[in-house]
Amino acid sequence: MTVRIGVIGTGAIGRDHARRINQVLSGGSITALSDVNRASAEAVRADIAPDATVFDNGQDLIASPDVDAILVCSWGATHEEYVLAAIAAGKPCFCEKPLATTAEGAKRIVDAEVAHGTRLVQVGFMRRYDEGYVALKKVVDGQIGAPIMVHAAHRNPTVPEAYTTPMAIHDTLIHEIDVFRWLLDDDYVSARVTFPRSCARTHAKLRDPQIVTLVTAKGTVIDTEIFVNCHYGYDIQCEVVGEDGVARLPEPMSIQTRLNATLQNPILTDWKDRFVASYDVELQDFLKAAAQGTASGPTSWDGYMAAVTSDACVAAQEAEGDAIAITYPDRPALYAQG
Amino acid sequence: MTVRIGVIGTGAIGRDHARRINQVLSGGSITALSDVNRASAEAVRADIAPDATVFDNGQDLIASPDVDAILVCSWGATHEEYVLAAIAAGKPCFCEKPLATTAEGAKRIVDAEVAHGTRLVQVGFMRRYDEGYVALKKVVDGQIGAPIMVHAAHRNPTVPEAYTTPMAIHDTLIHEIDVFRWLLDDDYVSARVTFPRSCARTHAKLRDPQIVTLVTAKGTVIDTEIFVNCHYGYDIQCEVVGEDGVARLPEPMSIQTRLNATLQNPILTDWKDRFVASYDVELQDFLKAAAQGTASGPTSWDGYMAAVTSDACVAAQEAEGDAIAITYPDRPALYAQG
Amino acid sequence: MTVRIGVIGTGAIGRDHARRINQVLSGGSITALSDVNRASAEAVRADIAPDATVFDNGQDLIASPDVDAILVCSWGATHEEYVLAAIAAGKPCFCEKPLATTAEGAKRIVDAEVAHGTRLVQVGFMRRYDEGYVALKKVVDGQIGAPIMVHAAHRNPTVPEAYTTPMAIHDTLIHEIDVFRWLLDDDYVSARVTFPRSCARTHAKLRDPQIVTLVTAKGTVIDTEIFVNCHYGYDIQCEVVGEDGVARLPEPMSIQTRLNATLQNPILTDWKDRFVASYDVELQDFLKAAAQGTASGPTSWDGYMAAVTSDACVAAQEAEGDAIAITYPDRPALYAQG
Amino acid sequence: MTVRIGVIGTGAIGRDHARRINQVLSGGSITALSDVNRASAEAVRADIAPDATVFDNGQDLIASPDVDAILVCSWGATHEEYVLAAIAAGKPCFCEKPLATTAEGAKRIVDAEVAHGTRLVQVGFMRRYDEGYVALKKVVDGQIGAPIMVHAAHRNPTVPEAYTTPMAIHDTLIHEIDVFRWLLDDDYVSARVTFPRSCARTHAKLRDPQIVTLVTAKGTVIDTEIFVNCHYGYDIQCEVVGEDGVARLPEPMSIQTRLNATLQNPILTDWKDRFVASYDVELQDFLKAAAQGTASGPTSWDGYMAAVTSDACVAAQEAEGDAIAITYPDRPALYAQG
Repeated sequence: MTVRIGVIGTGAIGRDHARRINQVLSGGSITALSDVNRASAEAVRADIAPDATVFDNGQDLIASPDVDAILVCSWGATHEEYVLAAIAAGKPCFCEKPLATTAEGAKRIVDAEVAHGTRLVQVGFMRRYDEGYVALKKVVDGQIGAPIMVHAAHRNPTVPEAYTTPMAIHDTLIHEIDVFRWLLDDDYVSARVTFPRSCARTHAKLRDPQIVTLVTAKGTVIDTEIFVNCHYGYDIQCEVVGEDGVARLPEPMSIQTRLNATLQNPILTDWKDRFVASYDVELQDFLKAAAQGTASGPTSWDGYMAAVTSDACVAAQEAEGDAIAITYPDRPALYAQG
Repeated sequence: MTVRIGVIGTGAIGRDHARRINQVLSGGSITALSDVNRASAEAVRADIAPDATVFDNGQDLIASPDVDAILVCSWGATHEEYVLAAIAAGKPCFCEKPLATTAEGAKRIVDAEVAHGTRLVQVGFMRRYDEGYVALKKVVDGQIGAPIMVHAAHRNPTVPEAYTTPMAIHDTLIHEIDVFRWLLDDDYVSARVTFPRSCARTHAKLRDPQIVTLVTAKGTVIDTEIFVNCHYGYDIQCEVVGEDGVARLPEPMSIQTRLNATLQNPILTDWKDRFVASYDVELQDFLKAAAQGTASGPTSWDGYMAAVTSDACVAAQEAEGDAIAITYPDRPALYAQG
Repeated sequence: MTVRIGVIGTGAIGRDHARRINQVLSGGSITALSDVNRASAEAVRADIAPDATVFDNGQDLIASPDVDAILVCSWGATHEEYVLAAIAAGKPCFCEKPLATTAEGAKRIVDAEVAHGTRLVQVGFMRRYDEGYVALKKVVDGQIGAPIMVHAAHRNPTVPEAYTTPMAIHDTLIHEIDVFRWLLDDDYVSARVTFPRSCARTHAKLRDPQIVTLVTAKGTVIDTEIFVNCHYGYDIQCEVVGEDGVARLPEPMSIQTRLNATLQNPILTDWKDRFVASYDVELQDFLKAAAQGTASGPTSWDGYMAAVTSDACVAAQEAEGDAIAITYPDRPALYAQG
Repeated sequence: MTVRIGVIGTGAIGRDHARRINQVLSGGSITALSDVNRASAEAVRADIAPDATVFDNGQDLIASPDVDAILVCSWGATHEEYVLAAIAAGKPCFCEKPLATTAEGAKRIVDAEVAHGTRLVQVGFMRRYDEGYVALKKVVDGQIGAPIMVHAAHRNPTVPEAYTTPMAIHDTLIHEIDVFRWLLDDDYVSARVTFPRSCARTHAKLRDPQIVTLVTAKGTVIDTEIFVNCHYGYDIQCEVVGEDGVARLPEPMSIQTRLNATLQNPILTDWKDRFVASYDVELQDFLKAAAQGTASGPTSWDGYMAAVTSDACVAAQEAEGDAIAITYPDRPALYAQG
C-alpha cells in the first residue's frame, strides 16, 4: 500500500521532505500540498510532485479524502492547530519541531491524542534516527554500565544577529533535550545554566557560550556546552560515563589526509550535512507506521517534555547559576516506555 | 514511473535485492521472479513481492511484457546467457559479479552491448557506491596531487576449506581490481604476486596471505595484501599516496569506548555489514537509469577488464614473483571515460 | 658543578627521586639522607647513594655544609617545617605536594621566601613538566584564541576505603587546580561542586563521581569530573575551548592493535605510569636552578594558591550546588607572572 | 664512577652528543675532543666541555689515559679506522652510522671484536631506543602472533640535489634495515625494488618513490615505501601483521585541535625531531655498559648485516623488479641472539 501524503508548509524542510517521499523512500506518495505562499506549493508540485493537488489551506488538506497522512512543516506557531486537526481527523501526522510553541499547547496535543486512544503523532526529533546516536544508545544500554554523567557540546560556527540567548535553548539545545531523554531513558528534574565570559564574536543580545546542566530523575548529571559562535565548525559531541566505562558519539565519516605537515579530517560547517541521512530514516519510519494508521518514533509526550524542559532552561538562564526545578504530570499510559 | 523489475536467481543476494526494491528504494517494483529452485522464488513472492509472477526460467522472465528491467542474481555460470538475452531484449540489466566466468564471455557481452549502441548493463561492483570510497575518490581527485602509490589490504577472518589460492583473486581481490580502476581512473599493465610464508590457520589448497602488486598505465603501483585467515576481523584498508599528500579510506562508523583498560572500537567480522549501505545506493542508481531505459555505474567494459586482470593475477600467482603483462583491446567509445 | 642534594623522607617518592638524581639526571649527587625510619634512609644509601651520610633528622641535614639543596619528601604534615628551615638556611628546596597542610602554613612559607628576597622553593606539581601539557599550553597560548572553557576529567580505577570525599580535592583535584592556573595563566574566583548519584563501586564516606566547576578571574569556566572509582583505567582528559577553536590533551603513547574484532589501544591503570617521565624533567629543572642557588618551576605562591582553592572546593562540596567565592591577597612581586 | 668520554668528530651530531653527556645524562663526562677542523673541537670545549682536552687526531685521543670510552662521530669514511683503534685499545666505542662504508670494512670490525672476545662496539641505530618502536616490539613479541608481513613507509618532505637513488638505501632505508631485523628477530634472504613513476618534485639522479621488498629467513615479507620528496612531512609508518592481529607504530605525540573546519594534528617535518628522545636513551645505555668496560645495544654484527643488506638493495635497484639474494656468513657466538 502506498501512503498518500499531504504536506503543509513547503518551505525548505517541507520541500525537502516532499522530495524524500517521492524520490528516495519507499511506500509513500505526495498527493497534496499547501502553503501560506501558494506559489511555493505550486513550485513543489511542478518540480517534485506533479500528481499532487495544491490546497488553499492546511485544514482543507487534512480533510481531503486523498490524504492518508500529514507532514506539518509550516511556521512553528501553526503546528498546534494542524496537529490537533490531524488527530481530530484520525490521520497520522508527522510534525516538525516544535510540536507547539508553548508547553500548554503541546499538552493540549497530548490530551487530544490520549483521548483518541492510539498514537497518531510523530515529532521531528531526527537525532534519534542518526546512525551515531543509535549505535551510541546500543552501547550505553549494554556495555558501559548504568550512566552517571553525560558531557556534551553543541557548537555552531556562527548565528545571525536575530539569534538571542533564549534561542540557544529553543532552537539549539532542544535537540539535546530530546535525545538525552531517549538515550538515557530518563526524565529531567532540574536545570542550571553557567555563563563563562561571552566570546568576542557574539553580539549584544546573545550570551555565548553557555553551559546547561540537567539532572535526571535517576541522578545522572548532563552538562552541555552550547557555543554558537565557535567559529571552527558545526560540531556535536557527546560522551556518556557509566559505572563500567565511557562511550563517545563518533565523528561524522570523513577522509583523513596527510597534507601540509598536518594530519587532518574535515569538520562539517553546516548542520544540515550532519543529520541529513537521519531525515531519510525518520520519514521512512513514519511511512511504515502510517501505512498501519498509527505513528512511531518521538511522541507528543516527548514534544511536551521538550517544551517543559526548555522553559525551565530559559528560566535557569535568567536565574544565572541557580538550579530550576522541572516538574510535569504523570506520563499517560499511551506513552509508556519500552 | 515505476520500473517493473524481474529477478533471476532468488538466493541470498537476489532475495535481498528484491526486498530493497519493494521496501526500501523508490521507483521500482518486483513483478517477476525465477530460480532454478522454484520454491525459492515462490518464497520471495510470498514474503516480499506478492504481486510478482514466478517464471519457469530466466529467458521467459526476460521476455515478459510485465518486466522493464532485470536483476541477474543467479549462479555465476549463467550470468552471460541472461545478460546477453537482456541486451537482445533491449532491457536494462543489473548483473551481480562476475559479469561472466571468463574474459571471453565478458567480451561477448561488451560486443553485444556495443552493437546495441547504448548502455543497458550495470555490473554489481558495489564498492563504487560505498560512502567511504566515494569520499576518498573526491579527495584523491582534488586534494593530494596525482596518485603514485596505493597501499591496500583485504582481510577476512576466515574462509572455508573449499576456498583455494586462485579464489583469493576471483572472489576477493576482484573488488579491489575494479574499485582501483575507478578510483584512479586508470588501467593495469602488469601484475605480480608475492607470497610470505603461509599463516598457520590456512589449509593445504590456499596460500595465505599474499601480496598482489598491480602497476597501472600511468605508472602508479598498487600493493594489496590479501589475508583471508587474518582471524581478527573483516578489514578493508586503502591508502593513496599522491604527489602532495596521502588520503586514507575511513574505518566504518563505530562507537569508541573506554572499558577494561582499553580504548576500543569494534571491528566488523562479516563482509556483508561492511558494504550493506552501498547496495541500496547501487540499486537506486540502477532504478533511476532503468526508468530512462539505460544503465549507469560499472559497465560491461569494467566487468570485462576485471576478468582480464583477474586472469593475469592468477597467472602471476603461478609465476610466483614474476610480473605478468596485462593486455586488452582498445576501449570502445560507448565506455568512454568521464 | 655538581649540586649536593639531601633528601628528607626516603619512602617511595623520596627513594625514587634519589635514584633519579644519582642514576638518570645530570648535575646532582645525593650526599645526605634522613627519614623518621632510619632504616629506610640506610637502605637508600646502600642501594642507590653509597656516598651519602644518613642524618638523624631533617634539620641537621639541612644545616649540613655537605648539602647544597634539599628534597622534602617526608610526610605532608612536616613539609612546612623543613621548607621554612631550608629558606632560613638559604638553600634551594624542592618540596613534594602539599607545600603545607593548611593555607596558613603555605602563606608562612610564601612570607618567608618573600622576606628572603629570591626564589628558593619549587613545589612538586609535576604536570607542568608533562610533555602533553607542555605541548597543550603552547597551542593554547598561540593557536586557539583566548580560552573560554575547559572540560576536564580525572579518573582513577579505584581508591581504598580510607579515601573520603574531601580527599578527592586534596589528593586528586589538587593537580588540576595547579595545572589549570598555569595552563590558563589565570586565577580562580569561585568553585561549585555538583554531585551526580554516586556510583555503585564507591563506599559510605566517598561521594563519587563529582563535578567541580571553577570560574577564573578572566571568566573562563572549568568543569572537571573527578571519578575515582571509574573502574576502567587511570585517565586524564583535558579539552580547552578558545575563541577560535579547541585543543585537547593527547592520550599517552600506546600501540594500536587490531585483535579479536577490536581496534584497541591500552589505557593506563596506574597514575605513576602516566607522569613518570615528567618527574625526570621536573627534577632536572630543579638541579639546573639549584646550581645557581635559586629555584624555578611551581612557586610557593602556586602552592599557597592551590591550598586556598582546595579549601574553597571542599567548602563547595559541603555547600552542594552553591558557588563559593575564592579570595586571596595580592600576588607578591617575587612571583610576578611571565 | 664517571665514564671519561672522548669524542672524535665534533660536527652537528658529535657536538650534540657531547652536550648530552655533559648536560643531560648521568654517569659520563667529556674529557677529550678532536676534529679534522680543530676550531670545531675548540668551540665544543668552550661551549660545552671546558674540562676537555682537544687532541690533534682521533688516534691520540683513543690512546689517551684520560679517555675511558670513545664516541666516533666523524666523517663516515673514517669510522672503520677509529673503531678498530678503539678495539685495539680495549675501550668501549659508540660509532655513528655507518659502522664502515663497505661490508668488508664492517666485517673487519666484526672480526677484530670477535678476536678481542668481548663486546666493545655499539652502533648508532637509535630507532631501537625509540619509545614507539620499543612499545611496538613488546606487542609484536607478545600479542599479535608470529609476524607474517610488515608494511612500512619512510617519507621525507624533500632532499637536496646531491641525494641520488642509491642514497635512498644507504642514508634512508638503512634505519628500517636495522630496526626490522631487531623488531622481528630475523635476517634477510632477498631484496626486490619496485619503482612507480617518479614524482614531479624529484630530480634527474633520483628515482623517487621506490618500494623495497625484503623477505626474511622466517618467510616474513616486508614492504617499505621510500618517498623522500613526499612534500607533506617527515613520516615514519610501520604496521606489523601477525597470525592473530595487527600492530602499528604510534604517531609522534601531538596536540589535536579543531580549527578552521579541520580536526588536525601537526606532522613533523624534520627527522631530528622524530628521534631526538631516543638519542638520550641510546647514549645512556652506552654510558651504563661503558662503565662496565663493555658495550650493549646494536652490535658490530648488526652494522655488518646492515651493510650487506644495503648492498643487496642497491643491486636490486639496478636489477629493477628482480629479487636479489642476500647472503652472509654464520653469526659469531659473540653476537648470539637473546
